[in-house]
Amino acid sequence: MYKPERLMAFCDGVIAIAITLLVLGLEVPSVHDMTDQQLLSFLRESLHPLWGYVVSFILVGTYWLQHYVIFHYIDRVDRTFVALNGLFLLCVSFVPFPTGLQSSFRHDELAMVIYAATQAACGLSLMGIWWYAAHGRRLIGAEVPEPVVKSILRRTAVTPVVSLLAWAVLPVSADLSRLMFLAIPIAQFSHRELEPGSGEESV
Amino acid sequence: MYKPERLMAFCDGVIAIAITLLVLGLEVPSVHDMTDQQLLSFLRESLHPLWGYVVSFILVGTYWLQHYVIFHYIDRVDRTFVALNGLFLLCVSFVPFPTGLQSSFRHDELAMVIYAATQAACGLSLMGIWWYAAHGRRLIGAEVPEPVVKSILRRTAVTPVVSLLAWAVLPVSADLSRLMFLAIPIAQFSHRELEPGSGEESV
Amino acid sequence: MYKPERLMAFCDGVIAIAITLLVLGLEVPSVHDMTDQQLLSFLRESLHPLWGYVVSFILVGTYWLQHYVIFHYIDRVDRTFVALNGLFLLCVSFVPFPTGLQSSFRHDELAMVIYAATQAACGLSLMGIWWYAAHGRRLIGAEVPEPVVKSILRRTAVTPVVSLLAWAVLPVSADLSRLMFLAIPIAQFSHRELEPGSGEESV
Amino acid sequence: MYKPERLMAFCDGVIAIAITLLVLGLEVPSVHDMTDQQLLSFLRESLHPLWGYVVSFILVGTYWLQHYVIFHYIDRVDRTFVALNGLFLLCVSFVPFPTGLQSSFRHDELAMVIYAATQAACGLSLMGIWWYAAHGRRLIGAEVPEPVVKSILRRTAVTPVVSLLAWAVLPVSADLSRLMFLAIPIAQFSHRELEPGSGEESV
Repeated sequence: MYKPERLMAFCDGVIAIAITLLVLGLEVPSVHDMTDQQLLSFLRESLHPLWGYVVSFILVGTYWLQHYVIFHYIDRVDRTFVALNGLFLLCVSFVPFPTGLQSSFRHDELAMVIYAATQAACGLSLMGIWWYAAHGRRLIGAEVPEPVVKSILRRTAVTPVVSLLAWAVLPVSADLSRLMFLAIPIAQFSHRELEPGSGEESV
Repeated sequence: MYKPERLMAFCDGVIAIAITLLVLGLEVPSVHDMTDQQLLSFLRESLHPLWGYVVSFILVGTYWLQHYVIFHYIDRVDRTFVALNGLFLLCVSFVPFPTGLQSSFRHDELAMVIYAATQAACGLSLMGIWWYAAHGRRLIGAEVPEPVVKSILRRTAVTPVVSLLAWAVLPVSADLSRLMFLAIPIAQFSHRELEPGSGEESV
Repeated sequence: MYKPERLMAFCDGVIAIAITLLVLGLEVPSVHDMTDQQLLSFLRESLHPLWGYVVSFILVGTYWLQHYVIFHYIDRVDRTFVALNGLFLLCVSFVPFPTGLQSSFRHDELAMVIYAATQAACGLSLMGIWWYAAHGRRLIGAEVPEPVVKSILRRTAVTPVVSLLAWAVLPVSADLSRLMFLAIPIAQFSHRELEPGSGEESV
Repeated sequence: MYKPERLMAFCDGVIAIAITLLVLGLEVPSVHDMTDQQLLSFLRESLHPLWGYVVSFILVGTYWLQHYVIFHYIDRVDRTFVALNGLFLLCVSFVPFPTGLQSSFRHDELAMVIYAATQAACGLSLMGIWWYAAHGRRLIGAEVPEPVVKSILRRTAVTPVVSLLAWAVLPVSADLSRLMFLAIPIAQFSHRELEPGSGEESV
């Protein structure tokens, strides 16, 4: 009785809200009429949160894209699949919290560990969604070619792998660690099969 | 003139926003560059609100699912049905407030009473929606089997019953009381009839 | 080239967000582990904002319903109609601000005047939308009966009239003034023609 | 495999949330029971943020309209187009931040420069979306007339041009600079071809 389109529409709504709420993490001083000097120092302090905002925005956007690609192949939905999607939404809508943490505790490795763990959880729940749906062609059509199944699994697996590497790199440089997360969207977008000329069945 | 799909889409939107707004209840200190020690003590303090966030997220997600199941059987909509849905939305979008209360007043029974009352109101309004629609087959098709009608009523009734039990258990242990709310999603998901192989008409 | 369904979907989204954001106006003290006494006094202080929250929620819900009814009859859309809808959305998504004002400045007539003016603006923009669409059957079908046109205009006119009365009553009692706004949803729901048995064309 | 409708629905969701979140930038003092005098001075202070709220609301609404018009002509979607839309959404959902900045730092040119740069980025990303889609009829139908292609490009180009002029005017008057942004919606709505009688293919 569950329809994939309805579930996807609800998930799209939650992701759209989560990605837009990120901007609320960028605080604006409510004191009016500050001096130029104060604005400059405020902006200098804001550069780091801004960068965190942009990275989280791109990551959540990439998860939306991967979620979208997964639902392209889903034929039917069962309650375990609904629950796995709920887990994914819990992870994605939680992203503003660790994003805020690593902004406020800039020089703290622990904040970045929590950030990386959240991103890993987003990726792992996406992997779980696809693995559950594709295993034995449980919820996808028999016509979906095996390479497509493997390709999606590989791309969702990029997120936990990158998160792990970002964690490993933390003692060396927190900034490098942050930068590494951009490998997730790059990996998603560099798949040759996504090109328009590659036919409907391609990923 | 009311179309069930349009009403459902609006309700889905409100529920999606309410569930995503919950994360705003998790405050991040805006003081920059705190020490490791301060982050640790902040995180220790955050464990309780985090747990409350997760429970409320799961509960609202379960209400969405029950609301979704109800609309699967709705054929037509009248204004009383619209008003009952409005009442349900009022309850659901209010959830962030008692969630925040029981986070801030951790050792206070009153905060948990308000939390339980809000959850009970969500469940009761869902019960009211289904009862109104199903009574005398007012808004559902004549072909919907009686066991389905009873099963949905039973499952929406779980929420007020669990809320009442959680309230009764409060003097013993507030933490046990909080834990008990997880019986609501468990009851929803443990219905055998939800399995994919059980046919379109099953609940 | 504008499609009514697309415009309605966007409006529905904005209204759904505005109605759900209202709860953010209910502040929860972030100080942890307050005493029972403090919670009680906080709740006593919260009763007034809570009441304001409920009233604004019901009002925005009623505007959604009226907007929904209007779009039921819209056949085509032009840019003036799009602009009028934009004006309506501006009014509706502004509601959280005067709601907060009349909560914080409880004993201040000016706050209630701003509240009443905002509600009047919501109603007037809805009136404007319908008047523009229905005048000379500009954007609605020729088959829509004249009584339907008049009935919708009358019901959207209730909002500015009630707002004006609420303003007039202010010197007598601010609480009565607040209560009067409930006449708007009551007027909307007490229309006999909305009954399910009254046919597709009824309002 | 990307469907224009799905991408448009997600974009619509993000824009609807961004436009509604703007109201959260209007702070309401949480101190209860202030005096009339205090409310008056608060309102006087709020006039400037209110004006900024209205302008940003109108601008984001105009971007939605331009985005809507673009998608009217889109036949197919590729990943570069998805990425360009992501860039546009990043710009639009960022708008609340510079809106808050120019409210808090009223007399500071730098805040207005950041505001103008954000609006320019919104316009440029919309231009990029259309240029990518229309160039060589990459993602639009061959039947879309050349004047339509040029007209949309011209109208999205209005935003960066106006932003540049607003920046140039800043040393003369910040208020004039703010006012100039209203040229963007005016330019969008003054296109004769948008009239209902002008046929499906018109812009």
